[in-house]
Amino acid sequence: MSVTSPAGFEAAGVAAGIKASGDLDLALVVNRGPRQDAAVVFTGNRAQANPILWSKQVAADGQVAAVVLNSGGANCFTGAEGFQTTHATAEAVAMALDVSAGDVLVCSTGLIGEQLPRERLVAGVATAAAALSVDGGLDAARAIMTTDTVPKTSARSRDGWTIGGIAKGAGMLAPGLATMLVVITTDAELESGELDAALRAATRVSFDRLDSDGCMSTNDQVSLLASGASGIRPDPELFTEALTEVCTDLAVQLQADAEGASHDIAILVEHAETEDDAVEVGRSVARNNLFKAAVFGNDPNWGRVLAAIGTTSAPFDPYAVDVTMNGVRVCSNGAPDRPRDEVDLTPRAVSLVIDLKAGDASAMIWTNDLTHDYVHENSAYAS
Amino acid sequence: MSVTSPAGFEAAGVAAGIKASGDLDLALVVNRGPRQDAAVVFTGNRAQANPILWSKQVAADGQVAAVVLNSGGANCFTGAEGFQTTHATAEAVAMALDVSAGDVLVCSTGLIGEQLPRERLVAGVATAAAALSVDGGLDAARAIMTTDTVPKTSARSRDGWTIGGIAKGAGMLAPGLATMLVVITTDAELESGELDAALRAATRVSFDRLDSDGCMSTNDQVSLLASGASGIRPDPELFTEALTEVCTDLAVQLQADAEGASHDIAILVEHAETEDDAVEVGRSVARNNLFKAAVFGNDPNWGRVLAAIGTTSAPFDPYAVDVTMNGVRVCSNGAPDRPRDEVDLTPRAVSLVIDLKAGDASAMIWTNDLTHDYVHENSAYAS
Repeated sequence: MSVTSPAGFEAAGVAAGIKASGDLDLALVVNRGPRQDAAVVFTGNRAQANPILWSKQVAADGQVAAVVLNSGGANCFTGAEGFQTTHATAEAVAMALDVSAGDVLVCSTGLIGEQLPRERLVAGVATAAAALSVDGGLDAARAIMTTDTVPKTSARSRDGWTIGGIAKGAGMLAPGLATMLVVITTDAELESGELDAALRAATRVSFDRLDSDGCMSTNDQVSLLASGASGIRPDPELFTEALTEVCTDLAVQLQADAEGASHDIAILVEHAETEDDAVEVGRSVARNNLFKAAVFGNDPNWGRVLAAIGTTSAPFDPYAVDVTMNGVRVCSNGAPDRPRDEVDLTPRAVSLVIDLKAGDASAMIWTNDLTHDYVHENSAYAS
Repeated sequence: MSVTSPAGFEAAGVAAGIKASGDLDLALVVNRGPRQDAAVVFTGNRAQANPILWSKQVAADGQVAAVVLNSGGANCFTGAEGFQTTHATAEAVAMALDVSAGDVLVCSTGLIGEQLPRERLVAGVATAAAALSVDGGLDAARAIMTTDTVPKTSARSRDGWTIGGIAKGAGMLAPGLATMLVVITTDAELESGELDAALRAATRVSFDRLDSDGCMSTNDQVSLLASGASGIRPDPELFTEALTEVCTDLAVQLQADAEGASHDIAILVEHAETEDDAVEVGRSVARNNLFKAAVFGNDPNWGRVLAAIGTTSAPFDPYAVDVTMNGVRVCSNGAPDRPRDEVDLTPRAVSLVIDLKAGDASAMIWTNDLTHDYVHENSAYAS
């Protein structure tokens, strides 16, 4: 049920001493082949961490031998010294595995603006390489946790091939990806161009629709590595479908573990003119602090939904909109319908349906509520 | 020091029984002339409350006799019944003052999606009309408070003419205006077109630069009424300058009383290519929950500043940027400079300077931190 579920992969998670706590903090995922095709999507943020700058070059030729990931520091805005640390980490992996450093992706997560301890990283890579195993996926998932409370893993199998994944991320979740590091592996045989198309299609409707707090990260990276070890070339459509399932499963796990959240809110925008319109409308609600604070207080404050969507440029008439919360239609045609006290917001799962009555397109956006614990965790992060 | 400071104006604030608390909840500001020129700016939100729909028609001819304002309910998304309530309120003012209802602006603030008690409003208008006085400005300022803890008033005098204002607003503060109701009066003699130009110039760099929580309101309205009672036609540039001072003074009072805030953050973006770029960069920080929560925790987390501004499309190099917090340059050229523990964030006032090194334009954006009290107040608002 992780990156080591597909054939051809080994992984490890070790404590390299990057985190003061002594917890696992360095993960290694290795593709033993026979093929090493890969595709990667990166954060859309122009402020990019050193591992992003490095990994973009690695990913360019569609060949990846290994991914090394650390928690305990983002290695972002750390200057030339920071980039050299990323480079040294990749070189350490290359030496330990006898591969080219140019085929080693590097991912980092943690505080921005602090140097990583380079020697510990390099030593940790050697330890991780020695610990590699076909059962190491869960340790790798544990080693990339920051404020995550549980490791996130997923897998799907079809006729003779498997997709597996690990993910971390609990805050800074936003479109264009967010402080999420994800490694997905498969033993299916697909070329890097096919992997890239499948990965972009899958992330577009999964990770990109998760908008926990509207804050886009500097370090996001979702990697897809294919070993071809099953010897099977799947139908690209079936592969994309299974990959989307794995990505959605991981995205929902990220939502469920979002920092300080007490509600998981699924926002379905229906009858938009275009899918982009539906996404824009959903995001405007997902980023509205007043609505999110109301959900925290179990208050079905649908007025804040309409106030939020009124700021978008999507074509619809605010006075035609219906809003349904947890099955109760509280607003019809932009006016009150059922009494708000009929809505029970005490369960963690919240369903919000916004009917724009402007077309045939729809989209789902996932977010969380705004809570005391969110404020607390993010006001004390650096300490 | 309020709307009754300029000659030609009377005001009142009364308890009409709209608020369950029995507090003042209805305000009336009347222009006794000799002139009744006016200009109004409205929320940029497409989701517009009934008083906005009404007042837009009133403002169209540049003539306004009176403004009636209520707290205790926004009268937004309340359907035809709600619009009739707004209309009835204006008619009540017209009858009491012997003016045309078409010259009466209506403003409402409070919860969205609930009907206002029409009969109490109409009765309250009669009470307010009877209480009108040239000293009534402060009562009017008090009657429009919702979660505001203090009334907001301001005035500036120049050679023979005066500008005065009252304002409310403590949450939902965002550009394009925010749950702010503002009435500004002057005894200067200016035509509505001149007033409009001055008001747009003044709000653009004051209320529009206040972005407390990124949530745009459905009810914002800033009215400027000119009685001409001083008999003086001021130089338009001097008038705009004094008006900008009054608007900025009121905006800063709104920031200082923002719901639950424990820090007032002034974000100065320097050396942008254009002023619009500077505003976009400043807003991206003002709306970043992670940065705002860090300030609440007195944590000078400049990495979150860079992560926020990296999401903009403004032309600059993230690796050239300097960041200074409360006088300490914590980041130079996108890399760590002074240690973060040199920054003292315990005072309420926080100065953040972002030097983009991309041009000659600059802009100031005002915001607040994200606190436990913000979450608390906004999770319990409806109850």
